[in-house]
Amino acid sequence: MATTPIAQIIDGRTLAGQVRGDLEREVADLRDAGFAVRLDAVIVGDNQAGRVYAGNQAAMCAAIGIDYHLHELPGESSEADITGLLDDLNADEAVTAIMLHLPLPEGMDTARIQARIDAGKDIEGVNPANIGGVIYGRRTLVPCTALAVMRLIESTGIKLAGAEVVCVGASTIVGRPVAVLLMEAEATVMSTNIHTADLAAHTKRADVVIAAAGVPGLVTGDMVKPGAVVIDVGINRIADEQTGQSKTVGDVDFDSVSTVAAHLSPVPGGVGPMTVAMLLRNTVAAADGR
Amino acid sequence: MATTPIAQIIDGRTLAGQVRGDLEREVADLRDAGFAVRLDAVIVGDNQAGRVYAGNQAAMCAAIGIDYHLHELPGESSEADITGLLDDLNADEAVTAIMLHLPLPEGMDTARIQARIDAGKDIEGVNPANIGGVIYGRRTLVPCTALAVMRLIESTGIKLAGAEVVCVGASTIVGRPVAVLLMEAEATVMSTNIHTADLAAHTKRADVVIAAAGVPGLVTGDMVKPGAVVIDVGINRIADEQTGQSKTVGDVDFDSVSTVAAHLSPVPGGVGPMTVAMLLRNTVAAADGR
Repeated sequence: MATTPIAQIIDGRTLAGQVRGDLEREVADLRDAGFAVRLDAVIVGDNQAGRVYAGNQAAMCAAIGIDYHLHELPGESSEADITGLLDDLNADEAVTAIMLHLPLPEGMDTARIQARIDAGKDIEGVNPANIGGVIYGRRTLVPCTALAVMRLIESTGIKLAGAEVVCVGASTIVGRPVAVLLMEAEATVMSTNIHTADLAAHTKRADVVIAAAGVPGLVTGDMVKPGAVVIDVGINRIADEQTGQSKTVGDVDFDSVSTVAAHLSPVPGGVGPMTVAMLLRNTVAAADGR
Repeated sequence: MATTPIAQIIDGRTLAGQVRGDLEREVADLRDAGFAVRLDAVIVGDNQAGRVYAGNQAAMCAAIGIDYHLHELPGESSEADITGLLDDLNADEAVTAIMLHLPLPEGMDTARIQARIDAGKDIEGVNPANIGGVIYGRRTLVPCTALAVMRLIESTGIKLAGAEVVCVGASTIVGRPVAVLLMEAEATVMSTNIHTADLAAHTKRADVVIAAAGVPGLVTGDMVKPGAVVIDVGINRIADEQTGQSKTVGDVDFDSVSTVAAHLSPVPGGVGPMTVAMLLRNTVAAADGR
């Protein structure tokens, strides 16, 4: 086995920057045509992480010309208060995109509340009608992480129709939606999970491996076919063996896989930044009526 | 290779009869508890095939105690006429199950009209929120053919968690919804299509093969692992070589596969009758609030 890194690193940050550049022009064109692109975010109670996220989001939206409105509801809000606000935003023609920051206060039925968001404004793809629509062959707003995985694969130039793709992990958030998008792209798709008997036998056949199991370093070089595309969706916080400091690693053993794969998306700097860009992309698509 | 049939035939008619028997008791229990189970079907214009289907449906519903109401709209109805009726049925608490007979008059957006059916009353699983809900791990009403396939597999006693299942065909009606249900059942699932390079290599590994490509006799004995479960979803009308008469055959070459597989669902008499039973099952489940 080769021991020299040969894989081309898929630079999620640069690709995401290109997406944002394209979106900035698209937003300007829409504005010139009289259509404002707008994102309305809802946050409930004392959600510090959500507030930091919302702040970053506001800055990114400002940078490409999207109007950003944050609606803050008090922590003692009821489910009816939240769905009432969502209904108002759904009905408001000036609102083209809606997102709901998680977590909601304890005890709430998050799924039921998310499903209340109008499918055409649901830029996170949390309304099940959106991913269900993909199964039925319709163009919809789909979850941003799944969309980011597809964009990174497409950036390598690989033809997906007929390609064999193995999804490692069948989570509701990533593994299953990605598998559905890959079916729509006419790939031969395998979905694996913790019960899969011989994972390596499957990944070794694959033209594309998507690692989304939440297990640090699960996919190693000896599990990958030479020349394959490997997309790492894992975000795992572990302690560095040398320093003891906490660091973020993916589900892919970078050092060994980079000696075998032709294209490899790193963690951090791969799927993560592209996911953020896909939220903006969905925001523009929703305003554009797609 | 063995040339004697060894496969146990999965008798869809008998299994469907058992389901109907269970449902009849469940409907009686619900009625005793004060809840009527009711199915409201909508048919538009001069749809002769739909009328025959509706007649059969009325008889089956009567047999197990489900109230059946057929709403007939004239052929010159507009989309708004149909969605208006659906809205009324959605809002009517006495209506627990709704189905819309296809085809609709030419030029109508069938998908958009189907999506109008309240997800909780959508016993055909045509509202994308239902199959999308399965991706997100929720219990919903799912398409009857996909459900029938799952029931036939389960009837063999095979443990799906960890089993390798290959779906031959990725149609929006069967292949994709079945793949999603199999992911939910924790199987290792492969979805193949017309672009798949070496179909036989994949089916030969599989513990379960689902043939849903619409190609007569596509899956032959040499493509099947000894002892596998094979479910035939194909319904193809072909001319009999000897008599020249038209007959219905599946996607599985019955004679050769029956010498290799452990369990085989035939066409006719397999998935077909179970699909009809699953519509009744969904009707009862919808009334029962599941």
